[in-house]
Amino acid sequence: MMRALRWYGPGDVRVEECDKPVVLDPGDAIVKVTTAAVCGSDLHLFHGRVPKVRPGTVVGHEFCGVVESVGNGVRRVAPGTRCLSSMLTACGQCPACLKGDHLSCEHYAVFGYGEMFGGLDGAQAEYVRVPMADVTLSPVPDHLDDEDVLFVGDILATAYTGCVAARIEHGDTVAVVGAGPVGQLAAECAPLFGAGQVFSIDLVPERLREAAEIGAIPIDAREGDPARQLSALNGGRRADVVIEAVGNAAALETAWQLAATGGRLSLVGFLSEEPFPQSAGRTWMRGLDVATVVGQPIRHRHALTRLIEARRLRPRRLISDRVGLDEVPEAYVRMDRREVTKVIVKL
Amino acid sequence: MMRALRWYGPGDVRVEECDKPVVLDPGDAIVKVTTAAVCGSDLHLFHGRVPKVRPGTVVGHEFCGVVESVGNGVRRVAPGTRCLSSMLTACGQCPACLKGDHLSCEHYAVFGYGEMFGGLDGAQAEYVRVPMADVTLSPVPDHLDDEDVLFVGDILATAYTGCVAARIEHGDTVAVVGAGPVGQLAAECAPLFGAGQVFSIDLVPERLREAAEIGAIPIDAREGDPARQLSALNGGRRADVVIEAVGNAAALETAWQLAATGGRLSLVGFLSEEPFPQSAGRTWMRGLDVATVVGQPIRHRHALTRLIEARRLRPRRLISDRVGLDEVPEAYVRMDRREVTKVIVKL
Amino acid sequence: MMRALRWYGPGDVRVEECDKPVVLDPGDAIVKVTTAAVCGSDLHLFHGRVPKVRPGTVVGHEFCGVVESVGNGVRRVAPGTRCLSSMLTACGQCPACLKGDHLSCEHYAVFGYGEMFGGLDGAQAEYVRVPMADVTLSPVPDHLDDEDVLFVGDILATAYTGCVAARIEHGDTVAVVGAGPVGQLAAECAPLFGAGQVFSIDLVPERLREAAEIGAIPIDAREGDPARQLSALNGGRRADVVIEAVGNAAALETAWQLAATGGRLSLVGFLSEEPFPQSAGRTWMRGLDVATVVGQPIRHRHALTRLIEARRLRPRRLISDRVGLDEVPEAYVRMDRREVTKVIVKL
Amino acid sequence: MMRALRWYGPGDVRVEECDKPVVLDPGDAIVKVTTAAVCGSDLHLFHGRVPKVRPGTVVGHEFCGVVESVGNGVRRVAPGTRCLSSMLTACGQCPACLKGDHLSCEHYAVFGYGEMFGGLDGAQAEYVRVPMADVTLSPVPDHLDDEDVLFVGDILATAYTGCVAARIEHGDTVAVVGAGPVGQLAAECAPLFGAGQVFSIDLVPERLREAAEIGAIPIDAREGDPARQLSALNGGRRADVVIEAVGNAAALETAWQLAATGGRLSLVGFLSEEPFPQSAGRTWMRGLDVATVVGQPIRHRHALTRLIEARRLRPRRLISDRVGLDEVPEAYVRMDRREVTKVIVKL
Repeated sequence: MMRALRWYGPGDVRVEECDKPVVLDPGDAIVKVTTAAVCGSDLHLFHGRVPKVRPGTVVGHEFCGVVESVGNGVRRVAPGTRCLSSMLTACGQCPACLKGDHLSCEHYAVFGYGEMFGGLDGAQAEYVRVPMADVTLSPVPDHLDDEDVLFVGDILATAYTGCVAARIEHGDTVAVVGAGPVGQLAAECAPLFGAGQVFSIDLVPERLREAAEIGAIPIDAREGDPARQLSALNGGRRADVVIEAVGNAAALETAWQLAATGGRLSLVGFLSEEPFPQSAGRTWMRGLDVATVVGQPIRHRHALTRLIEARRLRPRRLISDRVGLDEVPEAYVRMDRREVTKVIVKL
Repeated sequence: MMRALRWYGPGDVRVEECDKPVVLDPGDAIVKVTTAAVCGSDLHLFHGRVPKVRPGTVVGHEFCGVVESVGNGVRRVAPGTRCLSSMLTACGQCPACLKGDHLSCEHYAVFGYGEMFGGLDGAQAEYVRVPMADVTLSPVPDHLDDEDVLFVGDILATAYTGCVAARIEHGDTVAVVGAGPVGQLAAECAPLFGAGQVFSIDLVPERLREAAEIGAIPIDAREGDPARQLSALNGGRRADVVIEAVGNAAALETAWQLAATGGRLSLVGFLSEEPFPQSAGRTWMRGLDVATVVGQPIRHRHALTRLIEARRLRPRRLISDRVGLDEVPEAYVRMDRREVTKVIVKL
Repeated sequence: MMRALRWYGPGDVRVEECDKPVVLDPGDAIVKVTTAAVCGSDLHLFHGRVPKVRPGTVVGHEFCGVVESVGNGVRRVAPGTRCLSSMLTACGQCPACLKGDHLSCEHYAVFGYGEMFGGLDGAQAEYVRVPMADVTLSPVPDHLDDEDVLFVGDILATAYTGCVAARIEHGDTVAVVGAGPVGQLAAECAPLFGAGQVFSIDLVPERLREAAEIGAIPIDAREGDPARQLSALNGGRRADVVIEAVGNAAALETAWQLAATGGRLSLVGFLSEEPFPQSAGRTWMRGLDVATVVGQPIRHRHALTRLIEARRLRPRRLISDRVGLDEVPEAYVRMDRREVTKVIVKL
Repeated sequence: MMRALRWYGPGDVRVEECDKPVVLDPGDAIVKVTTAAVCGSDLHLFHGRVPKVRPGTVVGHEFCGVVESVGNGVRRVAPGTRCLSSMLTACGQCPACLKGDHLSCEHYAVFGYGEMFGGLDGAQAEYVRVPMADVTLSPVPDHLDDEDVLFVGDILATAYTGCVAARIEHGDTVAVVGAGPVGQLAAECAPLFGAGQVFSIDLVPERLREAAEIGAIPIDAREGDPARQLSALNGGRRADVVIEAVGNAAALETAWQLAATGGRLSLVGFLSEEPFPQSAGRTWMRGLDVATVVGQPIRHRHALTRLIEARRLRPRRLISDRVGLDEVPEAYVRMDRREVTKVIVKL
């Protein structure tokens, strides 16, 4: 038996005893979780906005831990290895995986996100079963601890993939819409792609302060049209690249306004049915390109880990709260009220 | 004095005598036109859909000719040089030009397209004034004739830029919406980027026949949903890349349908206020990228000329009719009725 | 028991009975070979130039076959699946593999090439054991037969990787030194990267005839300095890109001569201790870049297979002889005398 | 008349009165120099190692100034404009320039470097004639001063082009051989390309201290084999990328030793007849790529200027001495003794 955070319905998550997972496939590993994060996308699930989640599902998809046991097809991660997990599983062997597009693998699944995403149990728990462990897990270098690399498995990879998709050119002015965890990480990654000025747009002063600490120029959207503010600070020109890291209609509208003629938009925020804020014709006449982005942690985790080792990135500074498993239900409520930036669970 | 085709209002173009142009700036050349094309976009102007065109404007932006005289700042193109012109002028010296984005040059102007595009007179005429001639003009290699290279100045560059923007990967299935001149050229260019199967979608059997001759797989949209037809011919999978070369709402709709999950859309057709055929949210969930495209003839003309020399491209096969200047008004009418594919004017 | 071609010493290869291989690892597959090739690099081994080959080693690394049985960790290739094999094995899961550099995988091994290359038995045999089968093997689409795809596993991937490494730009003049199988395939691949003119340099008229059939411009090196010949045919300019596909000191010398100022050299031929034909200083002053290349069949096989499906590549035309297993020793002798271009073995 | 530093023979440079330059071509500008640098490459000339230098040649190719007068073909830089100059001139209009390769322009010339480089007079003078001023000069943004941007015209562009040519991948370990001005700037630029750890190798403690200040990890080559030192600090692995910024045989030898299997070498240092330190065969077996580099200031100056504006680069910290024109002969002597890092001349 083990203890885990399980979802039972909108607003109803409970820490309770349940069966410890076991190896079901030669490629599986059972991982003893040492650190897990609560992700902004877990709030979607908490509120019941993710369809087809089986009551009793264990939640959580950002985690580190130590391999406890493995199936006989596992080659790289022996028991005792401390690992970082990707939020998603993939086979590593099909044409999509060989191209680095693990999201298109037919074995793609997300931990703790319900049947539509593969029905895996998650990692806000003492143990988690990790399919295709050789690909899904990645050993952590000795001199890095869990908190150094934890976000490589999801939010850092998401922010970074957003920068890749934006095709930043050296010297470009970059605007990041949203200074939540993903937006802040995008602002931190952009200079690794040669970005010139990086602007961070939000409504929450505390978040803007945090963005400023990592070198972004804060723009408070409550103080007037962000495009006009940015233009005034940028020699009369709007942004060459806009990274949208919120995921709602208002943020899309802001993103389209921020882009200069010929600009590139990278949509990182989770969208469902939001309309385009401008016609295709007008978007064409302005010469805008639009990329849509879901994070690729398996593709990018090696580079990201090396960048963290070299201190080019320090994602752990985002951690605002460390809690025990019993306190996670309360943490969901506090995150929902935006009282905390990023909560992690120590097990 | 010289003879030229001048626009006076919707449907009203006349061949008449007018003043021969003269050098106005040290960077100008006066070119004696030898071959000019009638472009699909000239029909927009013919119908009065281009705003702010001064009556009496000489029309035409795709042409070759021989330099007759030059200003004293011209260095590369001496009198007597046979040249290809770009449809657009640019300085070649500002930051935008140095990046290869001549469309963003402040000296950007299009020949014969009215005040909004710089107010230059065009080239369906005996002579034309070419500003910034060192950049706008390009000498034609001796062993190529006008008809070999004529379309490099506009429609071939447009199709090719559409392929560049589509970021075709080797082996990709490419769908081209529209088998008019630009669509056919896009289908011809795609294999130079490593495209696998190339499909050409249109409603006009004659155009589909022409597309098939250059190796594209024709799909007649009158015979049912093009996405379903393509999928049936492509192992159950839609297109990795879609190039939209028509420029209306129905073609956008078709383009969105044709794209596979994770696909890239390259919008080459001239748009104004057409809506997006799908929400931003749905486009995001399908992982589509959308690039907007205007041709970059100055950036690409050297590569295109070498590809024509090496017989990798044979754009001249598009020429359906050769007429004299006096016959151009009639040619506009016949093009409008789609009786001809591509008309060129011999002077 | 099964029959196989085994190496016993320089010039001594024998077809004989030996043990049929069995699954040793959960990731293994046993493949019934249907078609194998004799590779130019097998001649190195035949002549005893490859160190540390155990007598009795089964030779051969280019093959197709049908999966007969698999270990319990194999997921993608079930018994009965017709597959193409890569010449090399790799895990697909380590950082090197995730970057597409399977040559740097610690599980890298080559079939039938001795202890220095991992000590695997090869595929000029009725059966072969294939480690890490999910990565090493690739299912063949139904409408392609063995001969269509056979060379994807080695020589086509090698030629193609040579083109990738050469960073061909659109319109570039490409010179390929050597019109043997790899050189011919490089000349066939180059236009998929936008090459302009492609020249093929060799001493053997028959090979030059074959190169001309796929569109390359032949240069017979016996008729005078190849650089001067190329320059005369290329408007006075040498080659932007040179692909060296022979692998000896004379060919390197020719390659350096063929390159234009600022040119790129891609060294595909197998080298060991050949000197550079020019000093570093002189190479620097000429602005040359030099890339070294070993083929990456796992990385590129999906694109190559799709290009073959789309008839952009037709590598099977290289096949000059089809023999049975008993005739392979004789085929080695004939290949060594250059009496045949490319021999395949039907089983 | 004006005052200028003129070369008369090895070790013989004199500040003297000479004719002030005048506009000779419609594209010329006469620039009143405000700041010039003494470049390491000026020492080659000082020592008489540059062939074909006419006695009386004015030296100096890194400078800023104010446009005093222009020819009538100049469009972008009006009299009174404060400008940065590129060390080289180019037309901006030929196919090579349109590809961004201004070094291959037939109008390529270097200021103050003798007849082999175009025979232009240089800028360690009160005035200098700048051909093709619209391309050669670049206006300086108001909020930057001469010292901010001065090195964009040569040594910063050189270091940066070296990073571009090295094709740094995110997370790569980069070793820079030489911590002189160009080596330090390469170490400062590498993180903008996503470099992980950056190592700086030199023999001079003061230079290594400066390299450490910009975040590089210093390796003192006097303390033992640099490759072994780097490997010990890099988890047992050598460098993915090596940038050679010295330009002699010993530095080439070190560069080859530092590279990991599959590594990329970027040769930035000025070479003439130095041999390769390893055979082609051994280089091939190690999978090394070798790029040769000359700086491209016109291509990269806009990005570099924006990166300086955004404080991603601070090249001015290299300035160790500011002198008047009369003190320049002495500065040559002190630079030659390595008593100073980078001397600039204020006029």
